[in-house]
Amino acid sequence: MFMILAATVGTTAMAESTRALLVIHGGAGTILKKNMTAETEKSYRDALENSLRHGFDVLKKGGTSLSAVETAIKGMEDSPLFNAGKGSVFTHDGRNEMDASIMNGKDKAAGAVAGLTIVKNPISAARAVMEKSPHVMMTGRGADLFATQQGLEIADPSYFWTERRWKDLQRELMEEAKGKGSTENRSWDTTLSEHKFGTVGAVAVDQSGNIAAGTSTGGMTNKRFGRVGDSPIIGAGNYADNESCAVSGTGHGEFFIRYTVAHDIAALMKYKGLSVREAAREVVQKTLKNAGGEGGVIAIDRKGNFAMEFNSEGMYRGWIGPDGVPHVAIYGGD
Amino acid sequence: MFMILAATVGTTAMAESTRALLVIHGGAGTILKKNMTAETEKSYRDALENSLRHGFDVLKKGGTSLSAVETAIKGMEDSPLFNAGKGSVFTHDGRNEMDASIMNGKDKAAGAVAGLTIVKNPISAARAVMEKSPHVMMTGRGADLFATQQGLEIADPSYFWTERRWKDLQRELMEEAKGKGSTENRSWDTTLSEHKFGTVGAVAVDQSGNIAAGTSTGGMTNKRFGRVGDSPIIGAGNYADNESCAVSGTGHGEFFIRYTVAHDIAALMKYKGLSVREAAREVVQKTLKNAGGEGGVIAIDRKGNFAMEFNSEGMYRGWIGPDGVPHVAIYGGD
Repeated sequence: MFMILAATVGTTAMAESTRALLVIHGGAGTILKKNMTAETEKSYRDALENSLRHGFDVLKKGGTSLSAVETAIKGMEDSPLFNAGKGSVFTHDGRNEMDASIMNGKDKAAGAVAGLTIVKNPISAARAVMEKSPHVMMTGRGADLFATQQGLEIADPSYFWTERRWKDLQRELMEEAKGKGSTENRSWDTTLSEHKFGTVGAVAVDQSGNIAAGTSTGGMTNKRFGRVGDSPIIGAGNYADNESCAVSGTGHGEFFIRYTVAHDIAALMKYKGLSVREAAREVVQKTLKNAGGEGGVIAIDRKGNFAMEFNSEGMYRGWIGPDGVPHVAIYGGD
Repeated sequence: MFMILAATVGTTAMAESTRALLVIHGGAGTILKKNMTAETEKSYRDALENSLRHGFDVLKKGGTSLSAVETAIKGMEDSPLFNAGKGSVFTHDGRNEMDASIMNGKDKAAGAVAGLTIVKNPISAARAVMEKSPHVMMTGRGADLFATQQGLEIADPSYFWTERRWKDLQRELMEEAKGKGSTENRSWDTTLSEHKFGTVGAVAVDQSGNIAAGTSTGGMTNKRFGRVGDSPIIGAGNYADNESCAVSGTGHGEFFIRYTVAHDIAALMKYKGLSVREAAREVVQKTLKNAGGEGGVIAIDRKGNFAMEFNSEGMYRGWIGPDGVPHVAIYGGD
């Protein structure tokens, strides 16, 4: 049923019956081969491939793009490698506060959570808000409470402690103590950008031709004041509409919010007739880049055309299509 | 300097030097003349006129559209009549949790706050986030703390207690106790919609031709789980870009988020060449209405063309232009 088709990374158009396709990202930033051991690189590649395989299993069995997106993201949330779920970065106060959102292109239903502290899989909490409440967005303790009442898996805060992220925070705090001022104001320090702005996301089209998008993050290392980035903001870090595309973003969230990145890509398709690749390139390489906003997006349309566009050094990313073979890449030249 | 020009409500185009103009709203919903005493109506009209006059004073003196928007909104936040600041509705737990956002069309800088509990003027907190932090959005206690550190006026929670809003909550709680289930699921009960979805907002163009937008709200009566609506979501309930328009929305926030209402109006102007009135009408009367989303928007472009569009029974609204005479309206036929 799933034929092997010749597919080019970046653009894939398939016949009606075989267009199920999943694209994921695990964050964009200063990701350079010279800073990566072979072992570390392999662990990232393995994690991306696992996420793709599990998400694609859902599509192969006739599941929805929404479920595929949730499954793929849960895989990355459960890995300590990515800044989401288990691997979330720490706030200034040494806590983990996670944000996520999900959107269904079929009916434009959406759900979002911000500031979760005890939910193992924030993407599932976002889906519960969408499906089990009349609301789109819940925040803070209220969102934790709702997820608990919905029977989602709860994790002790210690579950989210990882040595690597803890060291990231300590390094930031030491930099502050040295008198450099709040590291928040150095948020453009490129040596930190990968750790500071990591996010995971997925977009998919299912066998029925419906698309969906999801995004999940631990936010920014050393964040304060209940800062929320673009990941839980519908239209900024996440968007899905069957009439245009499904988008998940990663990068310096403040720019993604101000430039309504995800919805802008959809609007360029819907109102100007651009393809998903043209629209993603326009927003990431022109609008965002001109504004000084580093990051990237994955985007897909109903026909399975997709883009993995970024203006940073690298972006953890991958896709899997009809042949069921996962394709992953990390650096700019990949 | 400010000449009297013939101006039609809804569309006003002025010469370069006199195009300063301010448009406000105080919420949309089931606002019917038959339910309003002459005294109540007068108090609303007076409050809207005061807000317009104070905001326009800023423009007249050469101030920015951003300051005019903030000033106009502070006026409505300080009134017990509108669901924002002083007159905010109560959450299920009997608290007031306020959201606001502001955006500058000149540089697309933006600030937003959600879940404030002790800040007298949430719109000023949103502006402080925009101007005094590297972030766009802050939530919950962190946002309260940031506003406090910035020296904004702090109010005891009792300041936000008003008898009318308290009775609204008690009525909702009694309805729930009668077994009708959570009133959240009856959020489309039209007899409640005015109280449930009130919001205030302002858009303006200043003498330099820069536009700005601001939105502030107490959210939804009886809201739970840290629910956040569209008011603090850039692109949904608020947006400003000199290249297109400044927009502030009011209505059933979940629809405004899912349909990225404010940015969609801007995108229709930028990518399809629609006028601000055409774009506002398209989104409010077609997109939103077809989806079942009740509400309205005010929108303005750099030339002073503006729209006050709503699909509900009424919308508290007004505008003030070069002649300095405030124009206010409440019902659909006004």
